[in-house]
Amino acid sequence: MADDQPLTRVTCTAPVNIAVVKYWGKRDEDLILPINSSLSVTLHQDQLKTTTTAAVSRDFTEDRLWLNGKESDIEHPRLQSCLREIRRLTRKRCSESNGEGNSDRPPFSLTYKVHIASENNFPTAAGLASSAAGYACLVYTLAKLYGVEGELSEVARQGSGSACRSMFGGFVQWLMGEEADGKDSIAQQVAPETHWPELRILILVVSAEKKPVGSTAGMQTSVKTSLLLKHRAKALVPERMAEMIRHIQQRNFEAFGKLTMQESNQFHATCLDTFPPLFYLNDTSKQVIALVHRFNAHYGKTKVAYTFDAGPNAVLFMLEETVDEFVEVVRRSFPPANNGGQFVKGLPVEAATPSEELLSAVVRDPAPGALRELLLTKPGPGPMLVGDPSAHLLGPDGLPQSYS
Amino acid sequence: MADDQPLTRVTCTAPVNIAVVKYWGKRDEDLILPINSSLSVTLHQDQLKTTTTAAVSRDFTEDRLWLNGKESDIEHPRLQSCLREIRRLTRKRCSESNGEGNSDRPPFSLTYKVHIASENNFPTAAGLASSAAGYACLVYTLAKLYGVEGELSEVARQGSGSACRSMFGGFVQWLMGEEADGKDSIAQQVAPETHWPELRILILVVSAEKKPVGSTAGMQTSVKTSLLLKHRAKALVPERMAEMIRHIQQRNFEAFGKLTMQESNQFHATCLDTFPPLFYLNDTSKQVIALVHRFNAHYGKTKVAYTFDAGPNAVLFMLEETVDEFVEVVRRSFPPANNGGQFVKGLPVEAATPSEELLSAVVRDPAPGALRELLLTKPGPGPMLVGDPSAHLLGPDGLPQSYS
Repeated sequence: MADDQPLTRVTCTAPVNIAVVKYWGKRDEDLILPINSSLSVTLHQDQLKTTTTAAVSRDFTEDRLWLNGKESDIEHPRLQSCLREIRRLTRKRCSESNGEGNSDRPPFSLTYKVHIASENNFPTAAGLASSAAGYACLVYTLAKLYGVEGELSEVARQGSGSACRSMFGGFVQWLMGEEADGKDSIAQQVAPETHWPELRILILVVSAEKKPVGSTAGMQTSVKTSLLLKHRAKALVPERMAEMIRHIQQRNFEAFGKLTMQESNQFHATCLDTFPPLFYLNDTSKQVIALVHRFNAHYGKTKVAYTFDAGPNAVLFMLEETVDEFVEVVRRSFPPANNGGQFVKGLPVEAATPSEELLSAVVRDPAPGALRELLLTKPGPGPMLVGDPSAHLLGPDGLPQSYS
Repeated sequence: MADDQPLTRVTCTAPVNIAVVKYWGKRDEDLILPINSSLSVTLHQDQLKTTTTAAVSRDFTEDRLWLNGKESDIEHPRLQSCLREIRRLTRKRCSESNGEGNSDRPPFSLTYKVHIASENNFPTAAGLASSAAGYACLVYTLAKLYGVEGELSEVARQGSGSACRSMFGGFVQWLMGEEADGKDSIAQQVAPETHWPELRILILVVSAEKKPVGSTAGMQTSVKTSLLLKHRAKALVPERMAEMIRHIQQRNFEAFGKLTMQESNQFHATCLDTFPPLFYLNDTSKQVIALVHRFNAHYGKTKVAYTFDAGPNAVLFMLEETVDEFVEVVRRSFPPANNGGQFVKGLPVEAATPSEELLSAVVRDPAPGALRELLLTKPGPGPMLVGDPSAHLLGPDGLPQSYS
């Protein structure tokens, strides 16, 4: 390789998000346009993130992809959608900047092939939706590589609907939009990650079970068969979006928490109204729900709120002041299996000794081993460019570092 | 006791019913007026029935009640509603017949106290809603005792909403009505028990668990908190009632079965949309649902349909031709615990040997002991007067036979 610049590499990271107003159902399968708006909290990348390196070189003979170190199918239609969109935006940008000099052109030809490597800092087996972070990271990284700016959430959306919300930090809404081409189906930040410093997010990872019906197939069936989903999307979500934004702006935890739980329950209700019905909550999920309600009832207010996506893991919201005590309550309710691993991960948790009154009121029928681990995190920033060259997942030869 | 007629006794039986269009939610708690109409199948009394004896005597010093042999609280408000209504109708009838002779008067004073004994031929622990049969039997028996005729379903409704549907055999609708006094909230037979001779009902009794939230409290919370229930009751049920009646009239099992399952799922969806959410289906219920869908998918048509009330037990509908094979499939999927008891009760079931193809397609992850027993029955008649004097639950002394 005689060229000065045989390889251009860019590495970025992107976060996971958890919806508090749920997205379920598409009005356009190809463009991934939803039947209702949704709203999420972006989780901090210190605990959960995807890292992606994209590289181009005139020496590459084909586009290639590695996921968590394993070569994977780059022909996946949704991944191709994102690649195509980014390349289209690059061409558009180049043609627009014609006559103004070449400063906006990428430092390489668009015909060059691309190598992409992506990995999560959390096990896929954790059952945490990784596709949102994955596609957000892919789109953000490619955009940085090609020097594209502008409405990237629309591109990420075409990889995985909820990925568009991972393009921002803090509190993010995905506006459903009205246009047929999806140009107005985009994500917007409602409040930055610094808006609510006391907010904490505790993820309860339920011990592995059978994989449930995937969300893509599930939501298709729901759209086709659930009359309650139709009503929810059309008549109920618009008001709930406005309410949720108000509660977040006012940092009203009780109202935010209650609506978050109601949203989760209503989403799972529409899954049950689907034919055949979809069950994503298992008995452990239900025990977590009952525990949260008993805990709140004991205090006479909403101190903890749950939400569940298309799987059994619980994502709990609470204020910092509640964390230590509640984690101990969870530990008593779901005694860790003696497997040597760390039970509570993420942000530090202090030991707490809840009152006997609290314990006797909320801890019932302990289920040893039902939870695999807890992960404490908080709202965090959106995708970021990584400056440190040692973070590249692809080596100077354009292959995964571990292969080099 | 020098009187010729120291004691008048009447004994009747009444059936259980299972709703296929679900009742959930009252618009009037005292009169028990529902927020939507509902429709049920009356189950045969050969398998499930309540027997009630009512007796009056001028020697009785107070109203008394025995349930399954144990003296119980006769002051229960709903039981008092039924007693009061029957006595009111008796007075009305007597005053209307004034001047036409005394033939319609009961052969005793209305001031005489009443003794009532009631028992089920199935264990309460079976988790089968016994209040419908119980109140239907109470009202029917008191009406026979006092010689009252007319709109008895309206009286039974005031004991337990669904009891009004147990006042008829076969296929029965409960019209929600519009009047504030509930005079038009009554049950009507849609088709008699002889209408669909091939229809069979298989009850899967799930092994005992914790008792869930009672239906009275549950439906109150649902009415208060579930927006999906509001929509269902107002916008969806009217059309489903009309559809269900049409499917029954046409004996269209596939359409009847599919709508029955959708109704059950939608009811449980509104329970989940309740805040705090109500879960009546447990993991065994969900396994039964999945099994039924796999069975139907294997045949490419709806041969079996499930419905669940406010508890985990499954009630399955199928045609006679499907019973033997499906029972064997259930036995393979939920191998009976080796507890010596009979696993399949009720109508006779023949041994069947399903094809290996069917078994491998539908039997997955067998759950030994998860079902306690099966009960096979069919649609049956409404309440009946028992002629045989040996059937009285109260002896000549007006006390339970076992006490005499």
